Amino acid sequence: MKIAVMGYGTVGSGVVEVIEAHSDVIPKRTGGKSLEVAHILDLRDFPGDSHASLFTKDFYDILNDDEVKIVAETMGGVNPAFDFTMKLLQAGKSVVTSNKELVAHKGLELLETAEKNGVNYLFEASVGGGIPIIRPITQCLAANNIEGIAGILNGTTNFILTMMIEKGMSFDEALKLAQDKGYAEKDPTADVQGHDACRKVCILASLAFGKHVYPSQVETEGITNISLEDVSYINSVDGVIKLLGQIKYISEDSIAAFVSPAVVYHGSQLASVHDVFNAVLVRGDAVGDVCFYGPGAGKLPTASAVVADMIDCAKHSDRKKIFGWGAGEEDYVVDYKACIKMPFYVRAKATCTQINSAFSEVKYLSRKGQPSDEVAFITDIMTENELKKRLDGIPVLNIIKVTNY
Amino acid sequence: MKIAVMGYGTVGSGVVEVIEAHSDVIPKRTGGKSLEVAHILDLRDFPGDSHASLFTKDFYDILNDDEVKIVAETMGGVNPAFDFTMKLLQAGKSVVTSNKELVAHKGLELLETAEKNGVNYLFEASVGGGIPIIRPITQCLAANNIEGIAGILNGTTNFILTMMIEKGMSFDEALKLAQDKGYAEKDPTADVQGHDACRKVCILASLAFGKHVYPSQVETEGITNISLEDVSYINSVDGVIKLLGQIKYISEDSIAAFVSPAVVYHGSQLASVHDVFNAVLVRGDAVGDVCFYGPGAGKLPTASAVVADMIDCAKHSDRKKIFGWGAGEEDYVVDYKACIKMPFYVRAKATCTQINSAFSEVKYLSRKGQPSDEVAFITDIMTENELKKRLDGIPVLNIIKVTNY
Repeated sequence: MKIAVMGYGTVGSGVVEVIEAHSDVIPKRTGGKSLEVAHILDLRDFPGDSHASLFTKDFYDILNDDEVKIVAETMGGVNPAFDFTMKLLQAGKSVVTSNKELVAHKGLELLETAEKNGVNYLFEASVGGGIPIIRPITQCLAANNIEGIAGILNGTTNFILTMMIEKGMSFDEALKLAQDKGYAEKDPTADVQGHDACRKVCILASLAFGKHVYPSQVETEGITNISLEDVSYINSVDGVIKLLGQIKYISEDSIAAFVSPAVVYHGSQLASVHDVFNAVLVRGDAVGDVCFYGPGAGKLPTASAVVADMIDCAKHSDRKKIFGWGAGEEDYVVDYKACIKMPFYVRAKATCTQINSAFSEVKYLSRKGQPSDEVAFITDIMTENELKKRLDGIPVLNIIKVTNY
Repeated sequence: MKIAVMGYGTVGSGVVEVIEAHSDVIPKRTGGKSLEVAHILDLRDFPGDSHASLFTKDFYDILNDDEVKIVAETMGGVNPAFDFTMKLLQAGKSVVTSNKELVAHKGLELLETAEKNGVNYLFEASVGGGIPIIRPITQCLAANNIEGIAGILNGTTNFILTMMIEKGMSFDEALKLAQDKGYAEKDPTADVQGHDACRKVCILASLAFGKHVYPSQVETEGITNISLEDVSYINSVDGVIKLLGQIKYISEDSIAAFVSPAVVYHGSQLASVHDVFNAVLVRGDAVGDVCFYGPGAGKLPTASAVVADMIDCAKHSDRKKIFGWGAGEEDYVVDYKACIKMPFYVRAKATCTQINSAFSEVKYLSRKGQPSDEVAFITDIMTENELKKRLDGIPVLNIIKVTNY
């Protein structure tokens, strides 16, 4: 069976490598069909690459090849990936992708187009890299009402936080190390500001609750405000700081969804997710908590998820997946600050007297070298709006949500 | 769509409960079909149960009802579940099950019969209760050669070990507590001797490597020999003892598979799996390590996995799953003691001088209250046969494998 790969970067070249390295086992898993790479689309040149005869700079070489039935889109970005994917689906080709930005922004249109044309649009690799997440949520947990999801969805920030927690590095030092190791880009904005995690939250929320959630609907806070002082206070109560994407079911017509640093206590499965690893915890009304852990990025892990989707397309070429991913709504994602109650970690330039008069009960934390005019504490559960009201007039240094996952 | 449930015990009654509690969402996930419980087979009486009109003691009420297309087998045991399941599949009905004993012993015949009759035999609930494992391994990791699997596959023993490790309870005290909490049966043999974990190892090995592995081929050791002394020594090197099912790929024609207590170091995802929770770690050549965590047993978690399989059958009634689960072979599972090298934990009545003359290098452990004639140590990697040869003449108190997962 002929396939094509669009985008020969890290993931795209990994897709070709995984297909070639598994040419003996793939037919066993497709029911007899092999996957043969017929075209590789990339505008760049790859001198010396052994696939020279397969390269093209012309998208229409793929679109017009009637023998190509499955295409891997590993270009990234919304344009031109969206236009290419639409044309391929309309031409009756299935498309599989690792492109979370495209799925988060255009998933609904692409899934509808796939359905209309009797083909598949699959994106297991777009959340959690190599970790199986999409199928488990949509199939294995189908007999549950999902109550909430919390995920460590970005490996770069988890590596930086791990280095801060375990090695006492500052944010800047840890970011530099992540860049040196190739975990962070030269411009790390999409990772450290939480945008990458936000896209994955959108995909998870759309799948779990059936309405498209867009990145603009998900309030997103990165990890650049986390200091070693915060790490130290939270360590004193057996907690760690993780960048979490959180989704909570409220009603048929509303959910909460946000990305932010969060305090996770030891004992949670999410607390022991270190370095560049990712994990997604799903809470169902029947199953309780299940958690999926693994490499959230990386060439071969991500590529293996893309190829698994291709194997699925090849195996069931006559059949399309039903995702139940419907249209979004403007007020569907509520302002969590007004309605979700939780405890908060607060660090402030204040005295206990000031804090005690603002809060009925708090748990004070301490750290080595704590200045006499600094306090840190964990509040009772309340909304973030209420917290802000109580902190009015107090010079706050940092606020971090405390998760119940 | 009419369905039937065979066996109204914990899981079977859970299946009925999960179907009823999710009657609004199930049609959204099947593409429009609801699941309607038409018969419940059980030889017992359930006076006062609200499903009185559905009960039958006659299997043929289900077999002969042409409108019943999907049956949940939650009876447990090989007989008469095997006979019933065969007849149902031959009659063109799909069967889903939580019955690990039946799948481990008769999976191949049942899958072949299902395939021949164009129906499905699904068993997501048979390994890991509510944790999605079967689909992730067979679908999401399809682009990997699986190198090995290690799992905490039995909640009862994990609870007992957790109580020994965290609360300092003896094995007997912890077992008693597990029985009081309903986690362990009155006769706990199948759990504490590892037989339950062994069946799940068989299912995982058969799925991952394509040849039926039978319980008799899997050397199985339970946790009854684990003492608080062992727990204490291993704690001193940041390790914990877990009952692990381990499977290792050797070649196309051979694997190793065994169930035994194992030392797991902190840092492994398996080390932080506490109480009755289960986890399965899969190592793939492309993806690396992925891990699935959740409740490995329990009424509603297990039932939700059974119902998810029913939803899958209802959604794709025209299609059968390809598992690639072929016939077993006598010498397929090798004697791991002769060929798998690993480090071992050893506790013995001996002196360091004796140990030093038997082993070129060991790491000694210590514990509070250690008697002067007792040593405990961790060896270099070697086969178990070699270990036994070296320990010849030394009065050994316990030996525990050290895992590399």
